[in-house]
Amino acid sequence: MNLKSYFTEHRSEHLKQLQEFLSIPSISALSEHKTDIQKAAEWLADQLKSFGMKRVELLPTKGNPVVYGEWLHAPGKPTVLIYGHYDVQPVDPLHLWDSPPFEPAIRDEKIYARGATDDKGQVFMHLKSAEAFMKSEGKLPVNIKFCLEGEEEVGSPNLDEFVEQHKELLAADMLVISDTTMLGKGKPAICYGLRGLCGLQINLKGPKGDLHSGLYGGAVQNPIHALAELLASMHDDSGKVTVDGFYDQVVPLSIEEREAFTALGQTDKDLQKELGVPALFGEQGYTALERSWARPTLEVNGIWGGFQGEGTKTIIPSEAHAKITCRLVPDQDPEQILDLIEKHVHNHLPAGVTAEVIRFDKGKPFVTPFDDEAIQAAARAYEQAYGVAPAFTRMGGSIPIVETFGRLLELPVVMMGFGLPEENFHAPNEHFHLENFDTGLLTISYFLQEIEKLGEKK
Amino acid sequence: MNLKSYFTEHRSEHLKQLQEFLSIPSISALSEHKTDIQKAAEWLADQLKSFGMKRVELLPTKGNPVVYGEWLHAPGKPTVLIYGHYDVQPVDPLHLWDSPPFEPAIRDEKIYARGATDDKGQVFMHLKSAEAFMKSEGKLPVNIKFCLEGEEEVGSPNLDEFVEQHKELLAADMLVISDTTMLGKGKPAICYGLRGLCGLQINLKGPKGDLHSGLYGGAVQNPIHALAELLASMHDDSGKVTVDGFYDQVVPLSIEEREAFTALGQTDKDLQKELGVPALFGEQGYTALERSWARPTLEVNGIWGGFQGEGTKTIIPSEAHAKITCRLVPDQDPEQILDLIEKHVHNHLPAGVTAEVIRFDKGKPFVTPFDDEAIQAAARAYEQAYGVAPAFTRMGGSIPIVETFGRLLELPVVMMGFGLPEENFHAPNEHFHLENFDTGLLTISYFLQEIEKLGEKK
Repeated sequence: MNLKSYFTEHRSEHLKQLQEFLSIPSISALSEHKTDIQKAAEWLADQLKSFGMKRVELLPTKGNPVVYGEWLHAPGKPTVLIYGHYDVQPVDPLHLWDSPPFEPAIRDEKIYARGATDDKGQVFMHLKSAEAFMKSEGKLPVNIKFCLEGEEEVGSPNLDEFVEQHKELLAADMLVISDTTMLGKGKPAICYGLRGLCGLQINLKGPKGDLHSGLYGGAVQNPIHALAELLASMHDDSGKVTVDGFYDQVVPLSIEEREAFTALGQTDKDLQKELGVPALFGEQGYTALERSWARPTLEVNGIWGGFQGEGTKTIIPSEAHAKITCRLVPDQDPEQILDLIEKHVHNHLPAGVTAEVIRFDKGKPFVTPFDDEAIQAAARAYEQAYGVAPAFTRMGGSIPIVETFGRLLELPVVMMGFGLPEENFHAPNEHFHLENFDTGLLTISYFLQEIEKLGEKK
Repeated sequence: MNLKSYFTEHRSEHLKQLQEFLSIPSISALSEHKTDIQKAAEWLADQLKSFGMKRVELLPTKGNPVVYGEWLHAPGKPTVLIYGHYDVQPVDPLHLWDSPPFEPAIRDEKIYARGATDDKGQVFMHLKSAEAFMKSEGKLPVNIKFCLEGEEEVGSPNLDEFVEQHKELLAADMLVISDTTMLGKGKPAICYGLRGLCGLQINLKGPKGDLHSGLYGGAVQNPIHALAELLASMHDDSGKVTVDGFYDQVVPLSIEEREAFTALGQTDKDLQKELGVPALFGEQGYTALERSWARPTLEVNGIWGGFQGEGTKTIIPSEAHAKITCRLVPDQDPEQILDLIEKHVHNHLPAGVTAEVIRFDKGKPFVTPFDDEAIQAAARAYEQAYGVAPAFTRMGGSIPIVETFGRLLELPVVMMGFGLPEENFHAPNEHFHLENFDTGLLTISYFLQEIEKLGEKK
């Protein structure tokens, strides 16, 4: 079959389906979207069934279901496990979106919607590639299993257990994930390393109720002051994390790796311009790329306490709160890092308040050797579709499940991402460039053909 | 007339009227309550007219109207100007109220509602005292002018100009305000000093939009980190303000004043228990009472930035915000303090963000000699009603207009407050003890009779 003409012919039909998928507000962080999560999972299952995937089901977890489907009729050929997620990030602040996040709009050959690039758009491409083979040739070039989860954006709290319990069902020769980004327009990349993640919330409590700041100001600790002091104690002036022991397990960047990063030609100046900041900022002695790919971070993702309305309210609030997540690199351990931070909170707690720490979100960092034959097959597929060899990169983001899959199923992980860094992942006006939708469909299809050539591995 | 039996006879009628007044949600900080502000002002005007006050009108300002009414038919007698405010604080967090803030409820001889003690309840008492004289005797013992404003809780932004423009209309021999507290149950107090107030909002801006904390974490400054560092730089470990020059104009507490404070018998231990904090906190070398009555403060009243919802959202937010108010003591100047803080913000601004400072709320601190004959007349009225002599106190709160009235109209200010410190001013479950409603009505009435005895002053 001619894949190029197939995808050209079906383009408008595919985009219509993608818009339908993106219009389901499957936000996993907000419980009021529980039925939307279910709807998105069922939408995927219907799609998988429609082009002949077998054993399609919503497999329950303690949280949102995993959508599973398989086609195992390519004897002697490798089995490819495809992972993706159908849940999306919250959409606030809503007023910064140019079009509603769940009314997908195509402008300038980009599709705008929450989940367009992270990760519904990319999941959809794997479906359409498999469908292309099934509809044209009645079969797939390799064996395929889909494992699509609905809790990635809240840290995949139930997937470890799910994979552990379904080791046989999920057994495969390699895992493919499209949830990372390219280096830039026309610059494909295969990601061989991801940062890990751990998160916590700090709740500080002072007086039993909000107090009049005139009557009591000066007499008691203000929980916001205490929180500011506590958070400020977690970084030095250059942004280096000052939590005791935080960097102890970090594997230093090798000279070779730093040279390879530099060779990618991404300058700090370009990044500063892209992000619209007065200056880049972070740990001294590293480029911004090194800091975001291969150094750990501790970020306060949210803070709140007291009065946020119009005008003033002269109170000392009873409580103040912060949400923190850390990005981790090999060989940091999420549990151990949470222990260190919790210890820091208690050791640096200002007088006059009490602290509660709630833990969530854990994923280990992950690095895979990029001379693996599955990764090299992906590289050939990219070259065929894009006309250039892909770069081998690491990424600052976390897909906690990557490390779990790699460890529990003992298989190489191929991260083929088609997003662009400027596509507003997790932010207002998230979008996906249709040129990478088109070329990505080809890349994924060529990849399956390249894997077919490898023959049976197990 | 027998004032005691008059107020006993009319008690249930008075409480019904007070409940009606308190049920109007006249929140000045929130623009959606503009019509409620108007409604509260009209309610007061109708009341004043109903018992024979003359020239009753809503006098316009650039903001909310001032309710004015006068009765000047006591030739040869002093003129008392009564100031109060009919606006109230916002009510969030709403879920902490045991009964709805604008459905006044009487439980255990206390009336619960926003404004019950600050300041609608106390304003209402002055109306009912004047009404008692008018209804029983057809005249007042002295000349009275009411000046009731609707913007006290947002810092009285238009009252300076109003007083300046209405100097003749407001001319009087003394100003009476009931917006302060007693020392405790059965312990009346006349307040002779108030702290001043100034406020500002700090807006920090980093990247042009929220960023994915995985992709960019480590490369750029996080505005929440910058805000925490900036706010932490404003106090030392003991809570002393570290803004350069902040204390330069502060008049030190005299030994006599400190001894008088100590003699009031209020201990730090009692206060700690009352507020439910693990420990009191603040500037070393001062008692909590000294810190809250006679030392300046810088309090962050609210902070917000990034994600505040359920679960996690792994972003670096684009913005972070804080609202600050300072309580000032003689001879600090609000404008000068705002200059110092703004300078501090710019001098201590962490790299990688830009700062915007918005100023609001200004009121000068105020202290008046307590041997003034009007204050001494008030002391006699208290003794008659409560059976004990009142304490002379200072207060941590700010009534910016006190200083303005004192300065522009050149008159002594008598602060007769009937609230109790534990009545949740500005907090959920604000309430007012009816025993002080009853005894306060008598005190105010005896006070007018005491003033009558002073004869004409001007």
